[in-house]
Amino acid sequence: MYDSLSTALLTDMYELTMLQSALADGTAHRMCAFEVFSRRLPNERRYGVVAGTARVLEAVTNFRFTEKQLESLDFLNQETLDYLRNYRFTGQIDGYREGELYFPYSPIMLVRGTFAECVVLETLILSILNADSAVASAAARMITAADGRPIIEMGSRRTNELAAVTAARAAYLAGFTATSNLEAVHRYGIPGTGTAAHAWTLLHINDDGTPNEEAAFRSQVETHGTDTTLLVDTYDITQGVKTAIEVAGTELGAVRIDSGDLGVMTRKVRQQLDELGAYNTQIIVSSDLDEYAIAGLRGDPVDGFGVGTSVVTGSGAPTASMVYKLVEVDGYPVAKRSLNKNSAGGSKRAIRTHRATGTAVEEIIYPFRASQPEIGNLTATMLTAELMRDGEIVAGQPTLEESRAYLAHQLVTLPWEGLALSKDEPVISTRYVGFV
Amino acid sequence: MYDSLSTALLTDMYELTMLQSALADGTAHRMCAFEVFSRRLPNERRYGVVAGTARVLEAVTNFRFTEKQLESLDFLNQETLDYLRNYRFTGQIDGYREGELYFPYSPIMLVRGTFAECVVLETLILSILNADSAVASAAARMITAADGRPIIEMGSRRTNELAAVTAARAAYLAGFTATSNLEAVHRYGIPGTGTAAHAWTLLHINDDGTPNEEAAFRSQVETHGTDTTLLVDTYDITQGVKTAIEVAGTELGAVRIDSGDLGVMTRKVRQQLDELGAYNTQIIVSSDLDEYAIAGLRGDPVDGFGVGTSVVTGSGAPTASMVYKLVEVDGYPVAKRSLNKNSAGGSKRAIRTHRATGTAVEEIIYPFRASQPEIGNLTATMLTAELMRDGEIVAGQPTLEESRAYLAHQLVTLPWEGLALSKDEPVISTRYVGFV
Repeated sequence: MYDSLSTALLTDMYELTMLQSALADGTAHRMCAFEVFSRRLPNERRYGVVAGTARVLEAVTNFRFTEKQLESLDFLNQETLDYLRNYRFTGQIDGYREGELYFPYSPIMLVRGTFAECVVLETLILSILNADSAVASAAARMITAADGRPIIEMGSRRTNELAAVTAARAAYLAGFTATSNLEAVHRYGIPGTGTAAHAWTLLHINDDGTPNEEAAFRSQVETHGTDTTLLVDTYDITQGVKTAIEVAGTELGAVRIDSGDLGVMTRKVRQQLDELGAYNTQIIVSSDLDEYAIAGLRGDPVDGFGVGTSVVTGSGAPTASMVYKLVEVDGYPVAKRSLNKNSAGGSKRAIRTHRATGTAVEEIIYPFRASQPEIGNLTATMLTAELMRDGEIVAGQPTLEESRAYLAHQLVTLPWEGLALSKDEPVISTRYVGFV
Repeated sequence: MYDSLSTALLTDMYELTMLQSALADGTAHRMCAFEVFSRRLPNERRYGVVAGTARVLEAVTNFRFTEKQLESLDFLNQETLDYLRNYRFTGQIDGYREGELYFPYSPIMLVRGTFAECVVLETLILSILNADSAVASAAARMITAADGRPIIEMGSRRTNELAAVTAARAAYLAGFTATSNLEAVHRYGIPGTGTAAHAWTLLHINDDGTPNEEAAFRSQVETHGTDTTLLVDTYDITQGVKTAIEVAGTELGAVRIDSGDLGVMTRKVRQQLDELGAYNTQIIVSSDLDEYAIAGLRGDPVDGFGVGTSVVTGSGAPTASMVYKLVEVDGYPVAKRSLNKNSAGGSKRAIRTHRATGTAVEEIIYPFRASQPEIGNLTATMLTAELMRDGEIVAGQPTLEESRAYLAHQLVTLPWEGLALSKDEPVISTRYVGFV
């Protein structure tokens, strides 16, 4: 299994060389705040989805150096190695809960502690949030496009074998129904599912090498029952559907189509199934689907989607562009001053305001220790939650199921144009209040 | 550490449900061949780079089910669980060596054995090859664009925390000089490197909260020597360069610029460094570089590049589109017959032909057991190598360094237009010979 024993080397070298300098010059112990935020949404999307928060908290907890790891850090001096040997994060983490929406400059996470203990977490925290949020943000758009019809995540083969596991988790968070990935089923308790591959049909040949699709279908139905899903497009689809119903009967669970013009094919197959009396047999489609292809099938008789490549690669945005920036040192706000990279210094928190109808209006970002700004007759949701206190995960963190339900609810609060797939500005603006 | 104990659950559920059906109907023991290939190169690139081969061989070796894993497979019957409990791959794997170039329909890997033992490896093998090849294929183009100048991989924060480790490996394979990822340094022996973040400069403030860039530079130089790289664009670049040389002297190793118009900035900074007498101080640039941005700096005084997001995300192609298809059952060729998904059945091997000058001409794909086709006065390189025999890795597999050198040599054999960055057809065509 791939459960982590230590996450400490999932780190950029410069975190540790900076640490060494900071220990030498005494700045290592300055109290700092680092903020995770993104300056933009990728591909002119209208919202982003925060994912990976729970994984960050676990990874920070497991950020401990083993002796073997320390031996490999031969570019560090003894003082630095001693510091790392005893390292455990003892600071504070606040931020957006998993499944929360985010927009440009939303203060997604705030990590506070000494410079030394915070700086070494940069790479690990960003890796998790950027990867998971990229998948969840794409997946949420697919859920909207599917308009209530279930989507199965089946993209493991299109991404790193371990990234596949966390991608399955992020897709489920965003509303996918199930995953094909067994490790994700095992580790996260996500529902697992699967149909059959073309190889299954191709395997079934007669003694003379000629195809025998019927044998393949018959065997699958015998083993997995009539509720199974038969893949009907290995040879001729019309013949495949005919054979499927002959073998399984009219109560066959589903047929899957993995190629061709899916709109045309599904209408044709639906008609054929109905003519055969298989009114309850569902049609599942796959074949390089993304949110646009799913939306394009809205009027067609599709009962479920299988999505692979596009969801695990973030559908054109394989990473979120979140950064981890030092914003406060010993109580003073700090910020880089280069052009086009302006962000306000200082620790921050945020609320989202809503109309009486529930519709979200904007995010107001204000100093972490300030009182909540005036919002007139709107209502406010506090977006910044306590995640870690003195290095311990704050009790009552949401489960994956709870975060999944939370996101589904948040999407409903967006102004109606927020769920459109076309390119536009962020649907909610973020506004700084109370900074100098 | 993240060393694998078992890779067996990094698998799609349907591999195991197909296995169960195959065990039930007796087809599990049919001798099969599965082929890994790609129907196209992403984004109209001209070549692809095979990466991950060595990782596949290791992952197949570690494909063993633990009792705890088997317990989680509660959708399988006892016969199937017993099969998996004793599973070890005992078949044959042949294919392109790591660092080899590939083109549409190149038979990148051939996995032979019983249906049962081969089908369960599909997801794992594809995950590794698709992810690693996507990174290496993008990275190789960046190496060409850099025209001999070194590139550092620093994209860990832009991809899943464990995918980052193997992405660093793939980038190094393709010719990158070093990585920022400490786990990759530790696990694969890749050279590690790093500079400093803006946080380092921002950390150094005076008692009144005002910036003190000089203190940051002085501390870094004191700890890491004058050969270090100072990040000069946190505040004003011209002032940053001036301060850097004042602090470190004219033998400062390098300055890094991470924002702005890098062409303009590097020319300006070069001039300033030269005027200050720091003729040997190098200029390193970063800031969302991809192969096109790197090429755009070809005429500018850049001594090295730091590349993050674009390399770990495959620069617009985050996955290769390799598939794992059943091509042979009990000696008979098989193939899916759907439109636009035509591939020849049967086990295959391939040669690449070359002119006397060394320039590659084409790839000829022919039946695995046939003798080499006539190629006139060309020379031939056998692309299909023995990787695994009876479940054991064939001795003499190339090291990462050897594969890196091999790729560098192969790129030189491409026709000159093959290294252009613009979109076009594959520079080498693949041709089937000897199939019915």
